[in-house]
Amino acid sequence: MQPVSDLKTLFAAFDSQRDELLKEYFDFLRFKSVSAEPEFKTELLACCDWVVAFLEEAGMSVEVWPTSGHPMIFASWTKAGPSKPTVMIYNHYDVQPVDPIELWKSPPFEPETRDGEVYARGAQDNKGQCFYVISAVRWLLKTKGALPVNLKLVIEGEEETGSAGIAAILESKKEQLKADSLFIVDLGLHEKNAPALTLGVRGIVTMTVELRGSNSDLHSGMVGGIVYNPNRAMVELLAKLYDSSGRVAIPGFYDNVAEPSAEELKALSFTFDEARFKHMFEAAPVGGEREKFTAMQRAWIRPTLEINGIGGGYTGDGFKTVIPGKTLAKLSCRLVPNQDPEKIARLVSEFLENNTPPGMSLQITLHPGTGEAVRTDFQSHPVQVTAKVMSEVFERPCEYILSGGSIPIVADLSRSSGAEVVLMGLGLPDDNLHAPNEHFGIDRIRAGFVTMAAVIERLA
Amino acid sequence: MQPVSDLKTLFAAFDSQRDELLKEYFDFLRFKSVSAEPEFKTELLACCDWVVAFLEEAGMSVEVWPTSGHPMIFASWTKAGPSKPTVMIYNHYDVQPVDPIELWKSPPFEPETRDGEVYARGAQDNKGQCFYVISAVRWLLKTKGALPVNLKLVIEGEEETGSAGIAAILESKKEQLKADSLFIVDLGLHEKNAPALTLGVRGIVTMTVELRGSNSDLHSGMVGGIVYNPNRAMVELLAKLYDSSGRVAIPGFYDNVAEPSAEELKALSFTFDEARFKHMFEAAPVGGEREKFTAMQRAWIRPTLEINGIGGGYTGDGFKTVIPGKTLAKLSCRLVPNQDPEKIARLVSEFLENNTPPGMSLQITLHPGTGEAVRTDFQSHPVQVTAKVMSEVFERPCEYILSGGSIPIVADLSRSSGAEVVLMGLGLPDDNLHAPNEHFGIDRIRAGFVTMAAVIERLA
Repeated sequence: MQPVSDLKTLFAAFDSQRDELLKEYFDFLRFKSVSAEPEFKTELLACCDWVVAFLEEAGMSVEVWPTSGHPMIFASWTKAGPSKPTVMIYNHYDVQPVDPIELWKSPPFEPETRDGEVYARGAQDNKGQCFYVISAVRWLLKTKGALPVNLKLVIEGEEETGSAGIAAILESKKEQLKADSLFIVDLGLHEKNAPALTLGVRGIVTMTVELRGSNSDLHSGMVGGIVYNPNRAMVELLAKLYDSSGRVAIPGFYDNVAEPSAEELKALSFTFDEARFKHMFEAAPVGGEREKFTAMQRAWIRPTLEINGIGGGYTGDGFKTVIPGKTLAKLSCRLVPNQDPEKIARLVSEFLENNTPPGMSLQITLHPGTGEAVRTDFQSHPVQVTAKVMSEVFERPCEYILSGGSIPIVADLSRSSGAEVVLMGLGLPDDNLHAPNEHFGIDRIRAGFVTMAAVIERLA
Repeated sequence: MQPVSDLKTLFAAFDSQRDELLKEYFDFLRFKSVSAEPEFKTELLACCDWVVAFLEEAGMSVEVWPTSGHPMIFASWTKAGPSKPTVMIYNHYDVQPVDPIELWKSPPFEPETRDGEVYARGAQDNKGQCFYVISAVRWLLKTKGALPVNLKLVIEGEEETGSAGIAAILESKKEQLKADSLFIVDLGLHEKNAPALTLGVRGIVTMTVELRGSNSDLHSGMVGGIVYNPNRAMVELLAKLYDSSGRVAIPGFYDNVAEPSAEELKALSFTFDEARFKHMFEAAPVGGEREKFTAMQRAWIRPTLEINGIGGGYTGDGFKTVIPGKTLAKLSCRLVPNQDPEKIARLVSEFLENNTPPGMSLQITLHPGTGEAVRTDFQSHPVQVTAKVMSEVFERPCEYILSGGSIPIVADLSRSSGAEVVLMGLGLPDDNLHAPNEHFGIDRIRAGFVTMAAVIERLA
């Protein structure tokens, strides 16, 4: 067996290929692999092909698994043999839509570097994080000719739309997906250069709610005062979702919410830098259950219900005196351990049905991508190895955090693979993921490359 | 003086030119003269030129008055001499935007006839009504060589955005605008073939309300529960605008509302055909102050506040887990006599300021086009002449109605001209004006042609 590389060697390895790597990273970012919008299907498939070619050239066996949605890439190198552990790493090659496009300072699919940060849709989520994984794997295979562990990469194409297609095929691929550890490299750090591992993500359930009042948009002069305006109905209905303290007012919503264990609470850093938060987002931390829980508790260990979109009538330039025929809203709930997504969807739907204003017909559509919350054991071997590597890479003790985000496939993937989950990544709160001007630092591509190479070697 | 034409002659005159007239009407409809959207400016000016050429060819002197917005057409024929009355007729050549475009069965600027109705944006409002006016005037001038009255036509290009430009120049054009009667041909009938004159329109004030929570869209997982979502803030804020009975809950909103006189109430037909309304719009008449007022009272003699648009976050296909940086809403109030638009705008603004949820910065923009309510005297000479002509054209007694709509320029134009106002037109409640699939009947173009020719002749 080859000796484990020291970090200096790994940093030098990145630095020597830096220009070529960035060129490849930019190529990856140029694909408009937006999974939510059908018109980007061709670009999404081209992006999938690009990743496949990269991994084949690196020396892995690659399969593309068709799903009911977008294809999933399964790449493996299993020549370490059955006595060695099997490491699986998860990423995704699809990205979020780019709207509102007018707020981007540079075009979302023409990556641009400003002050060491690369700006593009997907720069971080998840192409940036995927890229340091695959380039670290390629370097290990090319330089050493072999890996000290068996490696499987799972790179899906519909994380941003809820991973429904891959969820449906996992059971049939159980044998191939078997692994000892499963690294979900789609998470982040609390602050720059402060290494951290994530011990859990929230679950999620999403729905579109439509209130229809008439068969067409109507004239607000002619029928204003006669009909119930669907915009009014929607604001009245959605306003009832919260009580005045910011708690979700749906009966039963909090019934099964689990309290984290004392041990877990002790290990976690709930620090919240309010000044920094305000500076980054120009936003005040005054949402949610602000009377009873701190900001990070609200984001990590409490469930939420958010109105992610609302739209009805005319909102363009000038003014149009319409009463819309219908108004729609997009709602999501983030869930914590013990909350069942299906039960929550049912409670929300029933509440909306029971509170629909007169004259409206209500239609609720659940979206794919429902997922339970996940907690990982911070004392597991893979978590401990990774924490040690990260402490060394960043020269600072690794902290344990949670994420308020959701990766719906994690629960299913961990069940199918039977692996210990490690939730990791180098995202930062101000990377603007899912927003205009998403960006990722070249220094983090570098740190990610080193971290992944070191973790793979040390898990042997 | 030439004898007044009988109606049979006028109907025959229309029928003999029918094909040519429809061709010209379609040409008029093809211009995308959307006043609210700057990208249509060229089309709007081309449309203006088309009307100017039509009127010059008809034998009128035409001036185009520039305004701060879109140009206004002033055409006159004053050879009847100072002893004859001066009749002024108002129309507009601009149209509403076409969104939601996907609901149109035929393209909005490619007019198409189905079952005797012409479908196009502006088919009724106001190109259809303008077209029967100008073609009747042309026929009178061409056939008789002269008119028995002095005639002035005012055809503006920004009625749909509130007539701010024309309002600003009226005072300086006072001399030219002097008239004895002012026909606002932008109104409608209560039902098909039931002649009616409108005795009043509601006033209007419109505004855009923006709630900003952060400098960018945020990730609902990362900050959900931490920040106050502007969509939530907006629904909570707007829900407070109404009490549970449907009354507007803004203090002072109803303070100056005038009750119509007993005489007026007696003259008006408040009939409301609920079955027909439900059939037309598939909407229930359950909005507004439904506990204390009938449907037509709510639309005609009561003020309203409507949410004409609301938009924040992602409302496209699929799902996007954002918390929007800002959310906006478009509000309009329809006003009745004695309500001051400026005072109402102030009351609404103050209410919104006083109820803005935490963490939000509120911005309110008032739109141009504020206007008071107007009531006309149903016993005036021009109203009585017009009512008689309409009774004869439709062979049924002419009724008196009100309109819930607003024509902000009417109050100003009536002041500047010193004229008795007549509010008339042949629109119908199911013409889909301001909505997809707007349409107007060829039979109404014909009836309008006959009515206008007869009214002009009989006012001498």
